[in-house]
Amino acid sequence: MGGLPAFESDTEWLRGEGAACDVVMSSRVRLARNLAGIPFAPKMSDDDREEVLERSRAQILAGGVHPKVMWIDLRQISPLERSVLVERQLISGQLASGKAFGHSGGGRGAGEKRARGVAVGLPDERLSIMVNEEDHLRIQVIRSGLGLAQALEEVVRADDALEAGLDYAFGARFGYLTCCPTNVGTGARFSVMMHLPGLRLTGEIEKVKRAADDMGLAVRGFHGEGSETTGDLYQLSNQTTLGKSERVLLSEIEREIVPRVADYERHARRVLTERRREVLEDQVHRAIGTGLHARLLATGEAMAVLSAVRLGAVLGVVEGIDQSAVNALMLAVQPAHLQRVLGRELNQQERKGERATLVRERLARALGAG
Amino acid sequence: MGGLPAFESDTEWLRGEGAACDVVMSSRVRLARNLAGIPFAPKMSDDDREEVLERSRAQILAGGVHPKVMWIDLRQISPLERSVLVERQLISGQLASGKAFGHSGGGRGAGEKRARGVAVGLPDERLSIMVNEEDHLRIQVIRSGLGLAQALEEVVRADDALEAGLDYAFGARFGYLTCCPTNVGTGARFSVMMHLPGLRLTGEIEKVKRAADDMGLAVRGFHGEGSETTGDLYQLSNQTTLGKSERVLLSEIEREIVPRVADYERHARRVLTERRREVLEDQVHRAIGTGLHARLLATGEAMAVLSAVRLGAVLGVVEGIDQSAVNALMLAVQPAHLQRVLGRELNQQERKGERATLVRERLARALGAG
Repeated sequence: MGGLPAFESDTEWLRGEGAACDVVMSSRVRLARNLAGIPFAPKMSDDDREEVLERSRAQILAGGVHPKVMWIDLRQISPLERSVLVERQLISGQLASGKAFGHSGGGRGAGEKRARGVAVGLPDERLSIMVNEEDHLRIQVIRSGLGLAQALEEVVRADDALEAGLDYAFGARFGYLTCCPTNVGTGARFSVMMHLPGLRLTGEIEKVKRAADDMGLAVRGFHGEGSETTGDLYQLSNQTTLGKSERVLLSEIEREIVPRVADYERHARRVLTERRREVLEDQVHRAIGTGLHARLLATGEAMAVLSAVRLGAVLGVVEGIDQSAVNALMLAVQPAHLQRVLGRELNQQERKGERATLVRERLARALGAG
Repeated sequence: MGGLPAFESDTEWLRGEGAACDVVMSSRVRLARNLAGIPFAPKMSDDDREEVLERSRAQILAGGVHPKVMWIDLRQISPLERSVLVERQLISGQLASGKAFGHSGGGRGAGEKRARGVAVGLPDERLSIMVNEEDHLRIQVIRSGLGLAQALEEVVRADDALEAGLDYAFGARFGYLTCCPTNVGTGARFSVMMHLPGLRLTGEIEKVKRAADDMGLAVRGFHGEGSETTGDLYQLSNQTTLGKSERVLLSEIEREIVPRVADYERHARRVLTERRREVLEDQVHRAIGTGLHARLLATGEAMAVLSAVRLGAVLGVVEGIDQSAVNALMLAVQPAHLQRVLGRELNQQERKGERATLVRERLARALGAG
């Protein structure tokens, strides 16, 4: 497991700090950019991709973008290591496999050899820049808690530093040109990861998802597009970027929609705490029982356990929990991280056993019982 | 909760002793008898029932039937106390409500006032004699483990002692006459309560139930006729009593059918232990986790937890368990016993909470963790 260096600290989005962190796990801003004079992804040749990679890498490492950057050529690390990057939310599944839009064809594993990379800002992994995903460049900043404005500021700084040495495709009429029309314009996507266990327990989650949809937000699972909800974590993000300025979009999401959903969730939690206290306590303690005793745990169930523990900690059902240890476990139970921690590849059944052992030990410690 | 006296020790069938007690919880023999010259249940008047009750009571208490007997007039105890007797397997649900076959009509609660009673042999509650159930007399003996022959011996002794002072309805052609034709002849029903968690976990339980059915046995849940399976406990019993001698019936069940089912169960457990050890351990430890942490427990789930703990103890998955404490819990979690222990009536939601508390405390003690 050689290619991928060790990370320096916990990834930013799991810190559990920041505004509204009782409900909001993290906020992410992502910009889509393309280099002028080079075809967009569907029409790129291998040489085009090499050129984008080389020019981007040079500019990223030139020093102005971020004080300390880890550059990773995704062709030079193993599939498992690429999955570690996906689980840390640093790259997309499409970039990992090389099967981003426009990279299809060539059969199974053909994406492996395509030129693509990612730059990760250290030590906190807040900044990451994907090269040769659906667009030539995708620049993202993740912050813990609700903090889209700060994230936008940081991502714009990185974008300016990149633009200082790279010529972006830009049209006077549409703004930044992107591969997929939904990203044209500002090229900005705002996402907020929310923890909504209360709404699930009161049975209102579907209603809130529909309401968010009506307000123009996409609601997705933990790993973004097409992924299952796991651990009651939902990603809310804007669907289109054309026709609204970044500031208007951001303000709508950060000041109106997310606070409203957060208030729904807080209301659901209040209902549980005040009127259905024993159901709430039962759910939280059962989850602890499963976490401390199960011998086999699938990822989804482990996430559900940790979600309930997190809810129990926030609502004071269980006291003295080391919340950062629980947050770190949310990442550690993911398949690739689990195998990285153990230093070897495991089949699914082995992973279930090792995951249960990991959760048993770390949860006991986090609860102060170990 | 005054009417029903305290019991002197644990009820026999939960001791977990005796032959084949890894799979067989208990063995029961029940005889159906009716007094000559008095109509059978469907045609009985109130006076007839009073007469049967009085004559039976006098003979039972005359001294020859059992050294120490507790006589309970079921009209003089509360519905909750009658339910305690049902849960201890001393009387049927029909006798408790007064709605045994032939006692119907008269509207809700009309059965309450019908003359009916039960005699319980002390201290171990092995013997019980129901008066004015479907038949005038139903005499049963329960033994822990597989022991139909000994139970038959005991029940025949009690029957002889009763017959010494009571004139039974008997026909030369059919033998003992009973209310329901399936009991005519010997009037004997043999039941064996088996604990079959292995067959459920390997998915073979339905096959075994069909096989038992083919061999002329009825397979029922924990509380007999019409009851749901709970805690992987199954009652196997003969369906008819006419045309076969008691000895032949008994020998078939005790020496052929039950050992065969027990061997299926042991085979399933071996498969689990040898080939699916981690699934077995996971199931047992998850059950322990639920038992030690849940805040709300329905009866069925509590029984499932205790069933898994029992399996884990028998197979050595968990060590140092106080098995008799686990057995006693199987009775203590039943609704009426729970309320009797707490000394007050509880609604269903309250019972779930109190049951969870009871299981948490007693299971922790039984596991040596409390």
